[in-house]
Amino acid sequence: MQLAQVIGTVVASRKEDVLEGLRFLVLRPVDASMNAAGNVVVAADAVGAGVGEVVMFASGSSARQTQLTQNRPVDAVVMAIVDQVTVEDSLKYEK
Amino acid sequence: MQLAQVIGTVVASRKEDVLEGLRFLVLRPVDASMNAAGNVVVAADAVGAGVGEVVMFASGSSARQTQLTQNRPVDAVVMAIVDQVTVEDSLKYEK
Amino acid sequence: MQLAQVIGTVVASRKEDVLEGLRFLVLRPVDASMNAAGNVVVAADAVGAGVGEVVMFASGSSARQTQLTQNRPVDAVVMAIVDQVTVEDSLKYEK
Amino acid sequence: MQLAQVIGTVVASRKEDVLEGLRFLVLRPVDASMNAAGNVVVAADAVGAGVGEVVMFASGSSARQTQLTQNRPVDAVVMAIVDQVTVEDSLKYEK
Amino acid sequence: MQLAQVIGTVVASRKEDVLEGLRFLVLRPVDASMNAAGNVVVAADAVGAGVGEVVMFASGSSARQTQLTQNRPVDAVVMAIVDQVTVEDSLKYEK
Repeated sequence: MQLAQVIGTVVASRKEDVLEGLRFLVLRPVDASMNAAGNVVVAADAVGAGVGEVVMFASGSSARQTQLTQNRPVDAVVMAIVDQVTVEDSLKYEK
Repeated sequence: MQLAQVIGTVVASRKEDVLEGLRFLVLRPVDASMNAAGNVVVAADAVGAGVGEVVMFASGSSARQTQLTQNRPVDAVVMAIVDQVTVEDSLKYEK
Repeated sequence: MQLAQVIGTVVASRKEDVLEGLRFLVLRPVDASMNAAGNVVVAADAVGAGVGEVVMFASGSSARQTQLTQNRPVDAVVMAIVDQVTVEDSLKYEK
Repeated sequence: MQLAQVIGTVVASRKEDVLEGLRFLVLRPVDASMNAAGNVVVAADAVGAGVGEVVMFASGSSARQTQLTQNRPVDAVVMAIVDQVTVEDSLKYEK
Repeated sequence: MQLAQVIGTVVASRKEDVLEGLRFLVLRPVDASMNAAGNVVVAADAVGAGVGEVVMFASGSSARQTQLTQNRPVDAVVMAIVDQVTVEDSLKYEK
């Protein structure tokens, strides 16, 4: 998984039928110190994450292993909202 | 998923039989501000996207989760046409 | 998928049994203007492509969705020979 | 697989239900000489690894091939703790 | 697939049970001229490759399509030992 900050949303009315009802979030991947790390990703939201929150997302076929995303053409899913990131006994992030 | 702009098409007459009938689009991945971000990708079109439109595409096995692409050797699919991208309350793209 | 030019071949006599009979091509990924874009890839050939031709290849599990490659440890397959690449009404490549 | 050093942990209380009970580790990928190589990754822990240990992790659908991770939206798993890395007869790492 | 040179081995005694009996090789990916190209990868050995040999490895779910690796948390496998690499009629590598 990667850590990311939710920075926005995508609206798409014309889409593959099975995508109906999914919410799409714009994610900025971050490193363990919450610095930007890599290109933005759009992920389906499986946990009700909001803009500004730090989350974990899973990519590839693993992104289809949630109730909301199974059998859907989705390659990234937010599957957890992060409370704390600790690196070598130092608290790097706390919600 | 990644955001991308449709910039062109690929014609290929000699191909694996099961690919018959698919339309192949040349995509330029973009970031949330619509700036180019990464190498071009060729994706199957599942939603009738046209050159110039901003779309979302899914990669890997998830690209086979549409009616058009299932069981086909396709690793990228355009599965939605984007209407709006909003980042931190600012409208970054509107169709 | 990615566009690539076939630049060579790989011969491997000692291999997993199920790979018997596959032909392996060395590919140089290219962008829409046929400039090199990324590291060489070795792909199984599902369409009878020759050195010098421009092709499309699929990666990951999708590379196993051809008759030749199913159930084989192959993560890239040439699934089409490209006739034309058009970008914004300009013909970038014609066979 | 990639080599990595376990550098921290992630706590996430709000998450997809099926993730209950998994432990999430922050990994710093390393090369064969234990130098940092690439962005941090968050992986599920299948072997009881501790901070400071050098491990191997698997990505993608292969990350779901452990008892702990099957059918879960997890795209990276620590599946072994490394005892020794030897490169060209030279011991690069020993636990 | 990618070309790589086998440069070492990894020993890991504490690991997911199903990994018992697999041999792990440290690979240095190379381009068609045998120059280093990218970070080292650890792969399971399905063909009895030795240090110094040039091999092909497959990644992702395709790495589980060998008898040795099926249903195991392995995302890279050496599936062939390379005898020859030819690029544009020039022999770039011969065993």
